[in-house]
Amino acid sequence: MHVTSSIHDGASAPAREPSLWQRYAEVRQTSMRLCSPLSIEDHGLQSMPDASPAKWHLAHTTWFFESFLLTPHLPGYKAAHPEYRNLFNSYYEAIGDRPLRALRHTLSRPSLAEVHSYRATVDEAMEKLLAPNLPPDLAELVLLGINHEQQHQELIVTDVKYGLSTNPMRPAYREHSVHSVPQVRVAPLDANLGWVAFDEGLYAIGAEGDGFSFDNEGPRHEVYLQPFRLAWRLVTNSEYLEFMNNGGYNKAELWLSEGWDCIRANRWTAPLYWEQRNGEWWHYTMEGMQPVVLTAPVCHVSYFEADAFARWAGARLATEFEWEAAAQECAVEGNLLESDALQPLPASSSSSSRLAQMYGDVWEWTGSAYLGYPGFRPAAGAVGEYNGKFMCNQMVLRGGSCATPHSHIRATYRNFFPPHARWQFMGIRLANGN
Amino acid sequence: MHVTSSIHDGASAPAREPSLWQRYAEVRQTSMRLCSPLSIEDHGLQSMPDASPAKWHLAHTTWFFESFLLTPHLPGYKAAHPEYRNLFNSYYEAIGDRPLRALRHTLSRPSLAEVHSYRATVDEAMEKLLAPNLPPDLAELVLLGINHEQQHQELIVTDVKYGLSTNPMRPAYREHSVHSVPQVRVAPLDANLGWVAFDEGLYAIGAEGDGFSFDNEGPRHEVYLQPFRLAWRLVTNSEYLEFMNNGGYNKAELWLSEGWDCIRANRWTAPLYWEQRNGEWWHYTMEGMQPVVLTAPVCHVSYFEADAFARWAGARLATEFEWEAAAQECAVEGNLLESDALQPLPASSSSSSRLAQMYGDVWEWTGSAYLGYPGFRPAAGAVGEYNGKFMCNQMVLRGGSCATPHSHIRATYRNFFPPHARWQFMGIRLANGN
Amino acid sequence: MHVTSSIHDGASAPAREPSLWQRYAEVRQTSMRLCSPLSIEDHGLQSMPDASPAKWHLAHTTWFFESFLLTPHLPGYKAAHPEYRNLFNSYYEAIGDRPLRALRHTLSRPSLAEVHSYRATVDEAMEKLLAPNLPPDLAELVLLGINHEQQHQELIVTDVKYGLSTNPMRPAYREHSVHSVPQVRVAPLDANLGWVAFDEGLYAIGAEGDGFSFDNEGPRHEVYLQPFRLAWRLVTNSEYLEFMNNGGYNKAELWLSEGWDCIRANRWTAPLYWEQRNGEWWHYTMEGMQPVVLTAPVCHVSYFEADAFARWAGARLATEFEWEAAAQECAVEGNLLESDALQPLPASSSSSSRLAQMYGDVWEWTGSAYLGYPGFRPAAGAVGEYNGKFMCNQMVLRGGSCATPHSHIRATYRNFFPPHARWQFMGIRLANGN
Amino acid sequence: MHVTSSIHDGASAPAREPSLWQRYAEVRQTSMRLCSPLSIEDHGLQSMPDASPAKWHLAHTTWFFESFLLTPHLPGYKAAHPEYRNLFNSYYEAIGDRPLRALRHTLSRPSLAEVHSYRATVDEAMEKLLAPNLPPDLAELVLLGINHEQQHQELIVTDVKYGLSTNPMRPAYREHSVHSVPQVRVAPLDANLGWVAFDEGLYAIGAEGDGFSFDNEGPRHEVYLQPFRLAWRLVTNSEYLEFMNNGGYNKAELWLSEGWDCIRANRWTAPLYWEQRNGEWWHYTMEGMQPVVLTAPVCHVSYFEADAFARWAGARLATEFEWEAAAQECAVEGNLLESDALQPLPASSSSSSRLAQMYGDVWEWTGSAYLGYPGFRPAAGAVGEYNGKFMCNQMVLRGGSCATPHSHIRATYRNFFPPHARWQFMGIRLANGN
Repeated sequence: MHVTSSIHDGASAPAREPSLWQRYAEVRQTSMRLCSPLSIEDHGLQSMPDASPAKWHLAHTTWFFESFLLTPHLPGYKAAHPEYRNLFNSYYEAIGDRPLRALRHTLSRPSLAEVHSYRATVDEAMEKLLAPNLPPDLAELVLLGINHEQQHQELIVTDVKYGLSTNPMRPAYREHSVHSVPQVRVAPLDANLGWVAFDEGLYAIGAEGDGFSFDNEGPRHEVYLQPFRLAWRLVTNSEYLEFMNNGGYNKAELWLSEGWDCIRANRWTAPLYWEQRNGEWWHYTMEGMQPVVLTAPVCHVSYFEADAFARWAGARLATEFEWEAAAQECAVEGNLLESDALQPLPASSSSSSRLAQMYGDVWEWTGSAYLGYPGFRPAAGAVGEYNGKFMCNQMVLRGGSCATPHSHIRATYRNFFPPHARWQFMGIRLANGN
Repeated sequence: MHVTSSIHDGASAPAREPSLWQRYAEVRQTSMRLCSPLSIEDHGLQSMPDASPAKWHLAHTTWFFESFLLTPHLPGYKAAHPEYRNLFNSYYEAIGDRPLRALRHTLSRPSLAEVHSYRATVDEAMEKLLAPNLPPDLAELVLLGINHEQQHQELIVTDVKYGLSTNPMRPAYREHSVHSVPQVRVAPLDANLGWVAFDEGLYAIGAEGDGFSFDNEGPRHEVYLQPFRLAWRLVTNSEYLEFMNNGGYNKAELWLSEGWDCIRANRWTAPLYWEQRNGEWWHYTMEGMQPVVLTAPVCHVSYFEADAFARWAGARLATEFEWEAAAQECAVEGNLLESDALQPLPASSSSSSRLAQMYGDVWEWTGSAYLGYPGFRPAAGAVGEYNGKFMCNQMVLRGGSCATPHSHIRATYRNFFPPHARWQFMGIRLANGN
Repeated sequence: MHVTSSIHDGASAPAREPSLWQRYAEVRQTSMRLCSPLSIEDHGLQSMPDASPAKWHLAHTTWFFESFLLTPHLPGYKAAHPEYRNLFNSYYEAIGDRPLRALRHTLSRPSLAEVHSYRATVDEAMEKLLAPNLPPDLAELVLLGINHEQQHQELIVTDVKYGLSTNPMRPAYREHSVHSVPQVRVAPLDANLGWVAFDEGLYAIGAEGDGFSFDNEGPRHEVYLQPFRLAWRLVTNSEYLEFMNNGGYNKAELWLSEGWDCIRANRWTAPLYWEQRNGEWWHYTMEGMQPVVLTAPVCHVSYFEADAFARWAGARLATEFEWEAAAQECAVEGNLLESDALQPLPASSSSSSRLAQMYGDVWEWTGSAYLGYPGFRPAAGAVGEYNGKFMCNQMVLRGGSCATPHSHIRATYRNFFPPHARWQFMGIRLANGN
Repeated sequence: MHVTSSIHDGASAPAREPSLWQRYAEVRQTSMRLCSPLSIEDHGLQSMPDASPAKWHLAHTTWFFESFLLTPHLPGYKAAHPEYRNLFNSYYEAIGDRPLRALRHTLSRPSLAEVHSYRATVDEAMEKLLAPNLPPDLAELVLLGINHEQQHQELIVTDVKYGLSTNPMRPAYREHSVHSVPQVRVAPLDANLGWVAFDEGLYAIGAEGDGFSFDNEGPRHEVYLQPFRLAWRLVTNSEYLEFMNNGGYNKAELWLSEGWDCIRANRWTAPLYWEQRNGEWWHYTMEGMQPVVLTAPVCHVSYFEADAFARWAGARLATEFEWEAAAQECAVEGNLLESDALQPLPASSSSSSRLAQMYGDVWEWTGSAYLGYPGFRPAAGAVGEYNGKFMCNQMVLRGGSCATPHSHIRATYRNFFPPHARWQFMGIRLANGN
């Protein structure tokens, strides 16, 4: 993990620690705001092991600050609830036993009110800790905690969506929003999917410390890329429907062997959340069941589906290196959490010669397995368990989604999930060349 | 199901329907009272598929009255929430689809408040239905609904106990009660376990319609019994500890083959809820972790354990017919739900010549498989799915427990669970002879 | 286990032990004869955990004689292969570790030739042991071993049938036999299924020692039976097809809850081995795929299916006590192993006033759970593990099948299997009354 | 798949096709020779789904030639056993249904003799097909079939080893061989493990058609590598024992998260085949149980173990690109199948400045996930299912093993297995730098 020079360098930021506190406070408030439409019962919802209850997210992110900052570094701090140390540990083996992930919904105690109180207590103590003389290594840890909480903000959205979706009544997270989604039909795949070309050559990949980044984003290193092309926009629901209607889910030759087994075992014939009603496709959204918008990016597909679609389309997925090389030219802007759409939106641009939707909307599956960069070393201690130990049987996704905070995403950011996962906002951008 | 003549016969009960309404109202209030110590979150707790959330119990018992009485029989009644019909169906195939039992905890909606409102709406309509001219067959159905809700009252207790117990903090359902449990050590097993003898002969077994009973309690029929003896009291924790300390869980020859596999697969070495702390045995109770009381009846053991214990003790379990023949002489009294102990208590009697603890404290595993009596016919229609379809791979338990309402238990009552179940208040009475 | 007086009483049988040797030798030869159509590879076949390889049966039955007779009782006997003691142990916990049942097919060593040699060695030693002065308790053990091997003879047939059936080529165990099966269509169920009536009263049930019997057949005891009726013959394929064509497998109300789950989970829509080819039903037999014979008894159905069929037919299954009371009047004769049909055959009698097919053809599912009789005590030592420890979650079957040796079956014989089992020759006789 | 110019270019090989037939014949004989120590029963052995019976390998490799060459390309060829087409299909979805992999042991028919006859029939027809005028595309397919059979030769060895090893008697595949393994103790890890250094730069990776290669070995492309170092030899049993004795299997921080779950779920505490006897480590070999040779390469470890060991040793695994760049300098020689050791052997060289054991002994786990190279396109048709569809959740291994035929291995060869697999001859070479 590397930390911004604006924090290291006091000269350029005379009110350094207040700024960190402000960032801390804002992120903490955002988590609460995301949960505000939820009932007490919704906070405890867990419909599959992967998707944790919102209450747990609120507590676990707090636990991070308590365990790694307050307990070791704030003199006189005494944990009000010592049992939370194990209770809200997620996977840090160095911390000790923890409840099974699949059973997080069984923690009816502490109550939501107690978790809110826990957050307030920790926030109060954090305000004390974030004094002007905060040592840089602690500032780094705070930044890590802030980014950690942002990750869980995205999970709050996706896990709540999954949890509510399994209720046969399909209750909405919120009323239908003001985000009017145009129903304009895009032209078919072959007609207008423009490509943006990139030259072969050595590209510098990875973060090099001019701002916060996770340990897995570095070290920065050279990667040689063959010439390649990226689709200017994301694959749409319309295009994905062509794939479905063309028998995509029934053609073994399009699928990875493991993917074929997966779709047959789970009887997948469409993206997650899609339901056919009277011949029309609907899908569950944060605003309840809605008709599928043809021009919007396809979402909630697994790597297996992204890979099969690309093969069917005569293209492929980009590698994470190609994606990052291309993204280096793009401004970090798009349909991110701050837009409050909470769903991917159609590309607003009509220029197929420039990359659109690189940030936000949906995480883009890449064809790269999640592995350490040359020279990668995890951070020392428990926080070192953060990224490195998952470098197996996962694929990299890039670019953030409609549930990703703006300040959390960047060109070097590496998200990763197993190839069968699809409850995150995950979609497809085609690549070509080579 | 048979219904009491006091309901059929208006002459002996001039205010017949009010009485039924009173019984209805009282049972409904008891369910609410049992849930009153629970937080909103506790109401949604489900730590294993078998143990449903309290909120679900509150809704499902209400659903029963709505589905079988109000909707078909109260003119003008219109379900406020038509989707509840499937949502709170437990297992009635005739009613339609239903959520998976294991996923009842995922129903964050309807909220607890909505379920309370659902109960109030149905209670109001039931008051209308329970008019003086209620036809006898509907009165029977109401009685069935009342008894059904009483069954779920016991489940509320046992399911909440299980749910809270899995929380690493072991939160209590309520504060330690006034039920002081004497710590007097009973004498060892061989010394004073007196037996009560019964002659061989033909015994009439089963209900014959002089009061409410479930369909599986009849028809009444003759059973020929060889001479037998029953232990005057339940097996105690002290005696069970002897079994444990004597290596009972390590001696294959004591166990049924399936039981041996079960205890090894689950690593059972003590009853459910027992934990050893500093060499002492504690167990989780409705009042949190408490030391095991040696003189109290052993509880939360499976059929496998009851059977192995009996074999170790040179005895056996009674058949359900022996138990019922013996119980016909006993008054229905004991440590039932109304005593509010919510745990089994030591035998208060000291006379080993008379049967004690036949009702209440713990359900007593019998050596009888749960099967239909000669001439058994399930009731017609959906309510006929109540008992008959479970007559396979279950063992019969008799006598009620500390969580059974007094008006719900009787000599002919047949409870049943699979041999591995142990989260109910289940214990052991030894038998001998033959 | 009780042994015949003809063995105990030397006076009536001057050449007592030679007779035992002859019986031993004949049974041993029968096992080999049953395996003679098998290739070396067929001897190792195991297509599901329950169905063991024929080679294993040949070795395990030999192991029984070696472990319980030769090693402890023949002076100077030394096991040629000490490792066989654990290798061919089936489930006797008292003997020690054993390979997992499901992995018996992985014992490529010892080879079939070595197993044959093992049998010869043990037979030779047994001939020495079976001297004229054999103590009665050893004679009892030999008889137990003989009956044990007869049980495995039936398993050789059923396990080989299952093993070969899973080969997509459906290879036959033997060429089509001379047993011509008449294709005469029986009249429909209601028309001619006559019933034989029995009075209520006390019946003596169980073996009382006038011949060999297993420990689970005693003690003999009185059972009070209500009046009942048994169908004069077994249920036919024709009748079972009516059930199937009438939607029997799609009507939840006909099924036990566990049965309904079982047929849906396994997608059962017909008896085991049935396949529809061009609209006609065929089934796999020891002679390969053959058309289903309408007049022959239905076979290879589970308890769940037998129970559902009986409910559909407005009847029920007999209890094991009813069956035995009725069988006491019947001669032990029928389509047993010696008839060499290896499949159930249509009833030859046309008199519906007398019971037919009580012995042989198919084991008849009863409505009785497998439990110990009053006063049941397992034999001491390892042989005591034979029957008692399986008294849980199994149903009793009566009467033997086309794979049961004639000398092995009797009115008191209790076979038992879990309710989902159907690879044995299992069928249905209806009962009525009560 | 690309084919050698010696085949394409008739000028340099006037007797082209005879040479192909010779290669074919030799490979076919090798398969038979590898099976020659096996009994008929051993040929059917399958102790886990992944490890197929030898008989199946003999048939499946034959099926390949029949399905892809004889049936479509030899005029007048008629399959003697049409049912083999599905029976011996391994995973080609384009061919049709096939028996479940885990149930290959249930194919007692066809017999071994019939499979031998099938091989002979196909060989005879192949001789006809391999006429002088064989079109190049068919020659390519034959070469693919030859390489396919070589792959299965390695599997015959590893699958037979696994199958025999699960027999409690631990029978040997063959008598102890003449390969005397020196017991000289190597110096500890830190003392003498020399490293061979490589410069950073662009390296050409992949095959470019100057000989047979699989489709997944190309296209040849440039990869930029940072400077790196490879250990001159494989990790030894001695070094691995240090890891074990140092608590390697109990330190969560050394393991990938999925690896930690794997070793705990499977209770792995040593490589596959290792057993401790009287304090000494033994392991199962093709010659039965033998003491672990300290100087020999550690073998039968999973990727998880290789990765954890490397982390413990302060090193890492090489990427497949680093390995290939280094291997380009090495002659293809080593302890391969032709040495007939059938186990890895200590490094014979003592010069730590040159790479040793790059080919043979054990497949070396790399830190590279198995993915397509830039521009990778699978071959068209069913043979295209060969490699590409497994590009998910597998890691690449390089260099061949003691069971790999010499003519089958090369610098560009990419083997792949899931990270938990360890029944192949798999080991570890450390890398460093970066």
